[in-house]
Amino acid sequence: MVNVLIEKIREKNNPTVVGLDPFVGKFPKFLVNNHPVCSASTRLPKEGNYRNDVVAESILEFNKRIIDATYDIVPAVKPQMAFYEQVGWQGMRALEETVKYAKSKGLFVILDGKRGDIGSTAEGYARAYLTKEGMDADALTVNGYLGSDGIKPFLETGRMIFVLGKTSNPSSGEIQDLDVGGLTVYERMAELSEELGVRSEEFEGRYTNCGLVVGATYPEQIKRIREIAPRTFFLVPGYGAQGGTAEDLKWAFDENGEGAIVNSSRGILYAYEKEGCDERDFAGAARREAIRMREELRQVIVNGE
Amino acid sequence: MVNVLIEKIREKNNPTVVGLDPFVGKFPKFLVNNHPVCSASTRLPKEGNYRNDVVAESILEFNKRIIDATYDIVPAVKPQMAFYEQVGWQGMRALEETVKYAKSKGLFVILDGKRGDIGSTAEGYARAYLTKEGMDADALTVNGYLGSDGIKPFLETGRMIFVLGKTSNPSSGEIQDLDVGGLTVYERMAELSEELGVRSEEFEGRYTNCGLVVGATYPEQIKRIREIAPRTFFLVPGYGAQGGTAEDLKWAFDENGEGAIVNSSRGILYAYEKEGCDERDFAGAARREAIRMREELRQVIVNGE
Repeated sequence: MVNVLIEKIREKNNPTVVGLDPFVGKFPKFLVNNHPVCSASTRLPKEGNYRNDVVAESILEFNKRIIDATYDIVPAVKPQMAFYEQVGWQGMRALEETVKYAKSKGLFVILDGKRGDIGSTAEGYARAYLTKEGMDADALTVNGYLGSDGIKPFLETGRMIFVLGKTSNPSSGEIQDLDVGGLTVYERMAELSEELGVRSEEFEGRYTNCGLVVGATYPEQIKRIREIAPRTFFLVPGYGAQGGTAEDLKWAFDENGEGAIVNSSRGILYAYEKEGCDERDFAGAARREAIRMREELRQVIVNGE
Repeated sequence: MVNVLIEKIREKNNPTVVGLDPFVGKFPKFLVNNHPVCSASTRLPKEGNYRNDVVAESILEFNKRIIDATYDIVPAVKPQMAFYEQVGWQGMRALEETVKYAKSKGLFVILDGKRGDIGSTAEGYARAYLTKEGMDADALTVNGYLGSDGIKPFLETGRMIFVLGKTSNPSSGEIQDLDVGGLTVYERMAELSEELGVRSEEFEGRYTNCGLVVGATYPEQIKRIREIAPRTFFLVPGYGAQGGTAEDLKWAFDENGEGAIVNSSRGILYAYEKEGCDERDFAGAARREAIRMREELRQVIVNGE
């Protein structure tokens, strides 16, 4: 499955994934005008005038417009599941429809759910998100704290996963940076992912189906993890809104400019606010920002060669 | 919120939580007779004759019967979210209905979702499961690999959480047992939970709202974690089907026989198979097993005093 992702990145010549994190309160007003469910000042609908079905509808409409405006520029999208789950089962239905729509446009779909559980339960999650009987996404983010029997059931679907290595948030070091005898916890997690990926049946080519999440906000760590896990594909969040720059990312890529995909969520989705354009052009602003980001990343990759 | 749980345990004089892990393939046949969606030999509906709405319906019916048969015996239920998520949004709707029904019967509801993400996203999960606008459960299991800013948003709801400490599965040691300088990773996680709980505004009484998951399959570790985290309430999975015995649990409880709740899922839900009774009496068998487990735990707690 990683080879499908690599092929799509080559086609678009762009290692960007658009994070579909629908903050309803940041949606353009016209989109929610007939849906008086949220105030623009918060991203969450206010208590009292809250209706999940209407919110879910506007999320799906927002996502479709973003996808329509960017699918010829980017190879992949990454819905962040929390934003759908907070809208109840109606939100999960909007997520299901979003995945279907994105796939119909040829996009590689990475569900960002950070699931992880003991073996038999991990099978349930794997079935839920990485099989035809379930949501049928191409990839899922996985929390490997439970060890390999919480990771393998996902790999056995033949789809791709991204195990959390070094995450992009400020307190990620509290557990992940602990020294376990010459290695940090996240480095040991990177080793474990590399091992599981290389041992997996589907492994062929340079990279395995067992990828790793490595935050753009920690460039030194990216370099070190790349050395430890040369066959592991990176999903890199934290670019843009969280403070990571394109320059910070250069160590994520190999000598061919491959081996990683960089996520931007708010930076692309809500580019219309920063740009100050007519809010009816929010999808156009997203497209312009996606192009700008593509050019910025290409620059880094070319310089890195 | 932990005090509500403690009160409910006192009322029933029983520190058991029934894990609502609906394996459709293990349901009594009469329950799915009009729903030709699954073969009895597997727990998952076979491809081809799969319909999420019908499966979700039978899950809800099963859960209600189990709740009806046990709510005067046990203080709490713990739906394992993977089993609902694998039935799509219809499964999530069945989960929502299950939570509502369990609460109407006075049960404390612990959602076992092992969620965890960076701060702003953790807020989304917190809202989804621990607020009135969301699923409105009393507690949620949380994966703390991302550190305290992935844990605090859950505590800020005023509800209870259980951070994964030492999980019950065979490979849990691969990451959790790593030595980080005199402490293991799971012991450091226990310290972190204790700190976050004690610092939280709602803390009053002996235990905090920040509980910990500690597998019954590792009795030595339970003893050690109890020393490290004396104000942390334990959720103990792995009893019964996973091999943990009542004797293994004695260190989880304090001198008053409090401070922990023990989960049994398959052992109670599918007791009718082991008992060999008429499958129409599956809920009665669950009740008998819940009573047997209560007596077994009481024995341990009394001896431990």
